[in-house]
Amino acid sequence: MGFLSSRVFKWICWLSVVAAFFLIGFLIGWFARPTQSARSDGPSHAVLQEFLDEMQAENIRQHLRKFTRLPHLAGTEQNLRLAERIRDEWLRYGLDSAEIVHYDVLLSYPNETKPNYISVVDDAGNEVFNSSLSEPVPEGYEDVPNIVPPYSAFSAKGQPEGDMVYVNYGRTEDFFLLQRDMGVNCSGKIVIARYGKIFRGNKVKNAILAGAKGIILFSDPADYCAPGVRPYPDGWNLPGGGAQRGNVLNLNGAGDPLTPGYPAKEYTYRYRTDEGAGLPSIPVHPIGYNDAAVLLRNMGGQIPPNNWKGDLNVSYRIGPGFADGLANRKVRMNIHTINRVTRIYNVIGKIRGAVEPDRYIILGGHRDAWVFGGIDPSTGAAVVHETVRSAGTLVGRGWRPRRTIIFASWDAEEFGLLGSTEWAEEHAKILQERAVAYINADSAIEGMYTLRVDCVPSLHTLVYDVTKKISSPDEDGVSLYDSWHKKDNWTDDRDAPRISKLGSGSDFEAYFIRLGIASGRARYTKNTKTEKYSSYPVYHSVYETFELVERFYDPSFRKLLAVAQVRGALVLRLADSPLLPLDCTEYADALAKYARAIAEAARKHPDELLEYRVSFDALFSAVDNFTAAATSFHERGEHVTSNTVCVRMANDQLMYLERAFVDPLGLPGRPFYRHIIFAPSSHNKYAGESFPGIYDALFDIQNAPRPDKAWEEVKRQISIAAFTVHAAAMTLNPTA
Amino acid sequence: MGFLSSRVFKWICWLSVVAAFFLIGFLIGWFARPTQSARSDGPSHAVLQEFLDEMQAENIRQHLRKFTRLPHLAGTEQNLRLAERIRDEWLRYGLDSAEIVHYDVLLSYPNETKPNYISVVDDAGNEVFNSSLSEPVPEGYEDVPNIVPPYSAFSAKGQPEGDMVYVNYGRTEDFFLLQRDMGVNCSGKIVIARYGKIFRGNKVKNAILAGAKGIILFSDPADYCAPGVRPYPDGWNLPGGGAQRGNVLNLNGAGDPLTPGYPAKEYTYRYRTDEGAGLPSIPVHPIGYNDAAVLLRNMGGQIPPNNWKGDLNVSYRIGPGFADGLANRKVRMNIHTINRVTRIYNVIGKIRGAVEPDRYIILGGHRDAWVFGGIDPSTGAAVVHETVRSAGTLVGRGWRPRRTIIFASWDAEEFGLLGSTEWAEEHAKILQERAVAYINADSAIEGMYTLRVDCVPSLHTLVYDVTKKISSPDEDGVSLYDSWHKKDNWTDDRDAPRISKLGSGSDFEAYFIRLGIASGRARYTKNTKTEKYSSYPVYHSVYETFELVERFYDPSFRKLLAVAQVRGALVLRLADSPLLPLDCTEYADALAKYARAIAEAARKHPDELLEYRVSFDALFSAVDNFTAAATSFHERGEHVTSNTVCVRMANDQLMYLERAFVDPLGLPGRPFYRHIIFAPSSHNKYAGESFPGIYDALFDIQNAPRPDKAWEEVKRQISIAAFTVHAAAMTLNPTA
Repeated sequence: MGFLSSRVFKWICWLSVVAAFFLIGFLIGWFARPTQSARSDGPSHAVLQEFLDEMQAENIRQHLRKFTRLPHLAGTEQNLRLAERIRDEWLRYGLDSAEIVHYDVLLSYPNETKPNYISVVDDAGNEVFNSSLSEPVPEGYEDVPNIVPPYSAFSAKGQPEGDMVYVNYGRTEDFFLLQRDMGVNCSGKIVIARYGKIFRGNKVKNAILAGAKGIILFSDPADYCAPGVRPYPDGWNLPGGGAQRGNVLNLNGAGDPLTPGYPAKEYTYRYRTDEGAGLPSIPVHPIGYNDAAVLLRNMGGQIPPNNWKGDLNVSYRIGPGFADGLANRKVRMNIHTINRVTRIYNVIGKIRGAVEPDRYIILGGHRDAWVFGGIDPSTGAAVVHETVRSAGTLVGRGWRPRRTIIFASWDAEEFGLLGSTEWAEEHAKILQERAVAYINADSAIEGMYTLRVDCVPSLHTLVYDVTKKISSPDEDGVSLYDSWHKKDNWTDDRDAPRISKLGSGSDFEAYFIRLGIASGRARYTKNTKTEKYSSYPVYHSVYETFELVERFYDPSFRKLLAVAQVRGALVLRLADSPLLPLDCTEYADALAKYARAIAEAARKHPDELLEYRVSFDALFSAVDNFTAAATSFHERGEHVTSNTVCVRMANDQLMYLERAFVDPLGLPGRPFYRHIIFAPSSHNKYAGESFPGIYDALFDIQNAPRPDKAWEEVKRQISIAAFTVHAAAMTLNPTA
Repeated sequence: MGFLSSRVFKWICWLSVVAAFFLIGFLIGWFARPTQSARSDGPSHAVLQEFLDEMQAENIRQHLRKFTRLPHLAGTEQNLRLAERIRDEWLRYGLDSAEIVHYDVLLSYPNETKPNYISVVDDAGNEVFNSSLSEPVPEGYEDVPNIVPPYSAFSAKGQPEGDMVYVNYGRTEDFFLLQRDMGVNCSGKIVIARYGKIFRGNKVKNAILAGAKGIILFSDPADYCAPGVRPYPDGWNLPGGGAQRGNVLNLNGAGDPLTPGYPAKEYTYRYRTDEGAGLPSIPVHPIGYNDAAVLLRNMGGQIPPNNWKGDLNVSYRIGPGFADGLANRKVRMNIHTINRVTRIYNVIGKIRGAVEPDRYIILGGHRDAWVFGGIDPSTGAAVVHETVRSAGTLVGRGWRPRRTIIFASWDAEEFGLLGSTEWAEEHAKILQERAVAYINADSAIEGMYTLRVDCVPSLHTLVYDVTKKISSPDEDGVSLYDSWHKKDNWTDDRDAPRISKLGSGSDFEAYFIRLGIASGRARYTKNTKTEKYSSYPVYHSVYETFELVERFYDPSFRKLLAVAQVRGALVLRLADSPLLPLDCTEYADALAKYARAIAEAARKHPDELLEYRVSFDALFSAVDNFTAAATSFHERGEHVTSNTVCVRMANDQLMYLERAFVDPLGLPGRPFYRHIIFAPSSHNKYAGESFPGIYDALFDIQNAPRPDKAWEEVKRQISIAAFTVHAAAMTLNPTA
């Protein structure tokens, strides 16, 4: 120690201290620096809660009030004004951008100088009865201009006259029964069908196939009045003078009839109207049950089976034509509706993603209404509006989601999903590459009982997660999940609230069924076990007013708030979670269930299955393969590191999983229905079933001229399904 | 200062020093930490050079030698054995994986007991002349078994007999001239066409459309002999006994005729052979020019125009039938070829990407040959083999590319691109999501003059870059770029070596034209300005041997080495550059040029353009929009930060640019030809033109029953092109 002076020793000590602090500083610096966009655990609970708490029932009430003062029919000045107002308010609420995007599409309106109506004509040619030209307008709306009378949009023009045949709901099975068992020929007749069970466009298609020269649609009290409820305005039932408007197209996802497959822009080639997609070739017209009673009262012909009888005080005899004594009377349709290329307007708002601006979550719903749109669509539009306000408020406070959120107010949904489909067509390529999910925002309520969710299997888990964080509007202190679970358990399948498949008929169609973007919808609904009427009674009538919702459906607006929170929370979690909250194992379970169901359905033909060597083994084997891939993906997912490229890779696989179910060739004869699992079946018998190609082929066996050919098609469809499921399994493998 | 003791002052100093060191440490720590997977500047020059230097001409010679000892016809045992050998060697060279993937596709072989031939039959029914049953086998190969005789794969069976008509090259314009100007009806005749100018399958299609009941194909010396060159084995010209094999399908990209659109796996539905895609309905057979001279020598009928005359010492009279005196003689085809579902085998090898394993660069070429495949495909296969060896060697030294490289040895290319198309069909969904580029590796040489590159515009810049780093095989000390530039300048358009559009007819078709993956090919070629023969003279004959290449085409194997280096460097740069070396501004320039060309072509009909209000403005406007988007992308690209998500976003946009040119609906009637810019035209007149939909529509005007309808189709196609270019522009915008 001798040579080490105390001074040197002191210096060494000091240097050590300095070095130690340097090292500590270095280490803190090293670890304090965030690695870029590293994975955190999703939008913090706090952000989600702040977003949900920001939404207010009272605001939704006010949005609904302002959206329902005037009619907003697509293609009208009033609906453009509303678009501008929404755009301006979205910008004010804090979106990064909001703009109006237009398309020029084929719409259809009554002729203003020649009204549409149905007559009964005597043998001298006198119109002894005419159906009403409009619905009695509800109190307080007497001075509102531009209420379009009930009509069937895109009806052919014409004044066919003839004997009438009652065809029940106008389903395929109804026409089969008529023609095969009852020997009634509809050719050259005017048919009358009650609304309900299937889409009205399909009734028209079936009537055309049966050879009818016109079709009258009516709302029967059996289908549009709930027992013990009074007609509007004293209750929420359909009054006898009310009638259901609606389009009668068979578009199969084509969008604008004149530009199928392409956006209806200035540069786009338009087919002539007589070449348009899905346009009916015969006149169609809707009437209320007061008028229907008059038409049906004196019908002749056979007495129908009991399940053809509605709740009118008539015999529901089938015809053709009126009973003896009145047999010379004919029915005449007077239809002057005009198809016209018209400009429509979507509003598109955006919040740019902070980390992945090229990944899109879309919340879209329509703005156009047949009249006031009290429920359809304004409950949906009001809910979107409040969601935009809440998200915009968070942006104002400095928050920004990881991915881009797109809000859409679609136009002309009522005319065949036109606004949403044209925008999807214009942006198809980038949507295919970049869209993570589409949440639909049509009517937010159709009943007062509980939540209803329809979505892809990969969203099941997220739906359960978010509904546990939202309060029930039905019971204080209970989560939405719990009250929903109590009211609508998934019974046989699993102990959880029921979630259904997505069908068709709203704006998600182009995004989900054509482009393969994971999609979902949520709304409040009736108790389907006890309430048997179709949709809700005043659907598409002038009686869909603000007061209908305020007085009957949701006086506190808490149900609409809950729906807003469900839709909003889905969007926020999808937009902000570093790892996408999509669950591929739920898809595996669903596919297994669907495969068992279709194999079971085919077993009704045991002899043919043997004779034509039809086997579902390839499909089951593909499902097993998918299940293994999903399980393995799920296990790997638990170990996804903070490496940003790894996170993006895993997310790409989750995003593209839904895309893999799309067949670019489409279903036979329906090029825009491309989702092999979830496209709608062509036959209402199988509406809601999965694997539509296989179901359709099985159905067609009944009418095939050659059974061997028909069974070949069944085999071909099974093979396409198996291929598609195998291909989807591959997308879950990062280096397949 | 009084109360501040020197001791306290000292402590403050020390604390400041400590704090300063802590801060310095912190800052160093903060900035020293690398952000994850930050961008580096591409594969270092050193890696690329090492990769290029590792490839050796002598190795390519040896690979070619071993690949050409035996015939490797698709579907044979010998071709499976070669697949296994390639797989084993690829694994030994260092790939992460290599495996054999099989499909069961429709192939076509001569009947082993009933040979195919053409006869001349006298009026007593005697066969007074029979065409040869095989080609004279070249020296040294006399004992090789399994040499398939010349035949037209997928010919219909049959023995049609009748008068013969000479139809020149069998092009649409040849049949027009015959039928319209010369008044010769081909209906019920056997036509004879010379090979060349267009794909043989199109000759067959045209013959069928003209009503012929059979078609004979022959190689005329005018098209298959270079002046001053001797026939093989003394030179590289086609001998008189040689004939060109080949398939005569019209698949339009369908792949296996029995499973169009889907991979031919065990689970796949197969159409019956009579329902198969692209199969000809009449017998077809190829002959050499010795036999052709006999058939043509005594033809009667009109003397043809001079440009119908080849180099045989005959009159090339058109017929129908033989000249007076021999007019009772008929021609009979005896065709017994059998179509049979047969297993084929691709070899798929992979090097897993280090950073982005879910991004694929594919180098693929076929292995199957009609006989020895001396040029086609084994020069290509030998080049791939050496590329695999070089890349594998680098992997052995610890290197790994950023992205995954996939090497493919396709089977059954000669039968309609079947192996490559089936694999593309099986993997379509992940390829669409993940494939960056496809580099084709068919025959690496077809002439001795200079480099030929056909690729998408976005690869132009990369091709120029890499050829500057490769030595010319023609001149020492000169880059390949310079020698190529000197020999084949892009004349009018630009001062750079000429690069052509990708056509069709090799394995890139499914990847490029159906799936929209950026693609390219490179090979050594002849001087197209002076050498007018079709392809190379001995193409698809038994004379395509190893010796043909070693003696005549590339004795030093330096040309093949240069081609290997071009293909390999493209793959390496695409696989390893952090920012993808794809140039969207080149695409913009190309689109502008193509749009001007099609507008110019339409101006041949000035009156109709006015009458039917046909305008190209929408297309020009779309091209302007694309150009602006490309310029802006390019400018942003120069500032892409080291943020890994930003790099991946920019790369996704570049990767998906090519995909945006795909229309999911396909070209009219050709669902698998989906590339709106580069799919092949239906009409050979426009082969090589872009915007095939518009060109086809313009062409069809000549034969349309109603000109207004035909012009409507022109307008529709212009609109589709404009839409597609707009959509492609959108993909270059990160938040469009």
